[in-house]
Amino acid sequence: MSEKKKKIIAVIGGGEPSPEEAKLAEEVGRELARQGAILVCGGLGGVMEAACRGASLEGGMTIGILPGDSSRAANRYVQIPIVTGMGYARNIAVVKSAQAVIAVDGSYGTLSEIAHALQSNIPVIGLNTWSLSRNDQQDNSIILAQNPAEAVNKALNLAGDQ
Amino acid sequence: MSEKKKKIIAVIGGGEPSPEEAKLAEEVGRELARQGAILVCGGLGGVMEAACRGASLEGGMTIGILPGDSSRAANRYVQIPIVTGMGYARNIAVVKSAQAVIAVDGSYGTLSEIAHALQSNIPVIGLNTWSLSRNDQQDNSIILAQNPAEAVNKALNLAGDQ
Amino acid sequence: MSEKKKKIIAVIGGGEPSPEEAKLAEEVGRELARQGAILVCGGLGGVMEAACRGASLEGGMTIGILPGDSSRAANRYVQIPIVTGMGYARNIAVVKSAQAVIAVDGSYGTLSEIAHALQSNIPVIGLNTWSLSRNDQQDNSIILAQNPAEAVNKALNLAGDQ
Amino acid sequence: MSEKKKKIIAVIGGGEPSPEEAKLAEEVGRELARQGAILVCGGLGGVMEAACRGASLEGGMTIGILPGDSSRAANRYVQIPIVTGMGYARNIAVVKSAQAVIAVDGSYGTLSEIAHALQSNIPVIGLNTWSLSRNDQQDNSIILAQNPAEAVNKALNLAGDQ
Repeated sequence: MSEKKKKIIAVIGGGEPSPEEAKLAEEVGRELARQGAILVCGGLGGVMEAACRGASLEGGMTIGILPGDSSRAANRYVQIPIVTGMGYARNIAVVKSAQAVIAVDGSYGTLSEIAHALQSNIPVIGLNTWSLSRNDQQDNSIILAQNPAEAVNKALNLAGDQ
Repeated sequence: MSEKKKKIIAVIGGGEPSPEEAKLAEEVGRELARQGAILVCGGLGGVMEAACRGASLEGGMTIGILPGDSSRAANRYVQIPIVTGMGYARNIAVVKSAQAVIAVDGSYGTLSEIAHALQSNIPVIGLNTWSLSRNDQQDNSIILAQNPAEAVNKALNLAGDQ
Repeated sequence: MSEKKKKIIAVIGGGEPSPEEAKLAEEVGRELARQGAILVCGGLGGVMEAACRGASLEGGMTIGILPGDSSRAANRYVQIPIVTGMGYARNIAVVKSAQAVIAVDGSYGTLSEIAHALQSNIPVIGLNTWSLSRNDQQDNSIILAQNPAEAVNKALNLAGDQ
Repeated sequence: MSEKKKKIIAVIGGGEPSPEEAKLAEEVGRELARQGAILVCGGLGGVMEAACRGASLEGGMTIGILPGDSSRAANRYVQIPIVTGMGYARNIAVVKSAQAVIAVDGSYGTLSEIAHALQSNIPVIGLNTWSLSRNDQQDNSIILAQNPAEAVNKALNLAGDQ
């Protein structure tokens, strides 16, 4: 199989984004699809659904790695549902399956995914998301982006370095 | 998204099949692809690789759900590697992501997948694989098939019932 | 810490045993406690509860590795609840935490635990449980016992070999 | 079983603490044991080992939930090794098994545990550890403590509220 594999980028974020954040996530999904990347996410609603919607509308491929026991919980824009039955342990598979991660907004579940990604040396690009300090020192591991296009470009560039 | 989702069928089996068993697995993969199904498996060698090879050669889609921390462990015919980092717990995701499971040969890892599938009411079709008795009573939950085409037909029919 | 660690033995089995099977499981728990072993199980009802009850009544220690998100699901005889939130993936931790496994009765969940144990080279002793054949050849990996005392003695002897 | 169950408190932190941080962790372990709590941790070295050492020296009980396939990886002060074979997914079981979590120092693995705990509404007390902001707003979910005794007292009080 000499053909080049497509890049896989994770989009992570909360289940209840503001309308502005949902719009950011949809645009991230659109841009990933335009640039030929596969989108992987946690498969549920909110940021995950908005990103899958964006990718689907541009003809991109979407994978949803689900926490529960049924593919029926997947949002309607997930094309390939992966059913784990493992609850939040699936967060680890979401980020490990990607060459880079884009975090949009998000609560503690998203923070756990950011942490698992950084622990695995997978680059994390942040759009309106968490920032971290450790022992009063700023941790700059999350790479900031100002808009969806910049987030996708940074993710694809860093994925290329792997 | 009114378009009908493709069926996803798991192929499970051992890492060190005999040449005859590898041939069975490859033919299962070919037939799944010919009938338009997506193949999901554990992503490594042996039966998994043979099935992915068959599906790929017929233009089908292949997903490999991997136990380790890197997509590099995937066999070369896996198109979409899912990286779990969870060891044998990934066996559960392999079967839960499918609407039916085809077991070819296999050792205790395959037996664990058969058990997890039956526990989740996911149909299991067997080709030269385990048979089960409980308290000296034959358990006929594994549906026998005589050849790859029959296994695939039974799997797709039962997947349709879900 | 030069003091010798206690042996840990898993008791696995179904959630809805017959009265006779529940009695077997309770007696397994009693005998494990009398011989100073720690009992680990899946923490829920049926065989798991009967075994924990037996062990507790003889002053033994009981660990329950739970599938859900709360220790409240543990049966009342679990002294140390381990909460995984990982569904049936916890089956793997139940057997891997033991030096030997005693299976009493059981359905497909128990079968998955037997398979995971055998895959990890952890001895399995069976009391009225599954028997296995592969490609029409009997697989004798499950070591048969005629009664609870024999099961416990075999488990502790084999655990000693590890 | 009318007897009151002991409280279980998780101690989380990095594998390579400074000598000062290791001393903090050991003192946390000592104080937990003095107050009759059970200590649960990830079972390996660094902060985990220092805390288990402290608890063991005061006669307390220690549980280590391990990422790999063998109890041999446990530090010598772990009395009850739980073997998961699930890699970092075991981080989730560490925090979910506790009624409160004390974080000492720590890197991204610890951050993932903090996040999983907060997601599950399990109180987190921090000693020289991460601090969090979201969208430029300080998140004060991690309860600060100035010393090990204060951390343990806060953990036990909050565990009592559950």
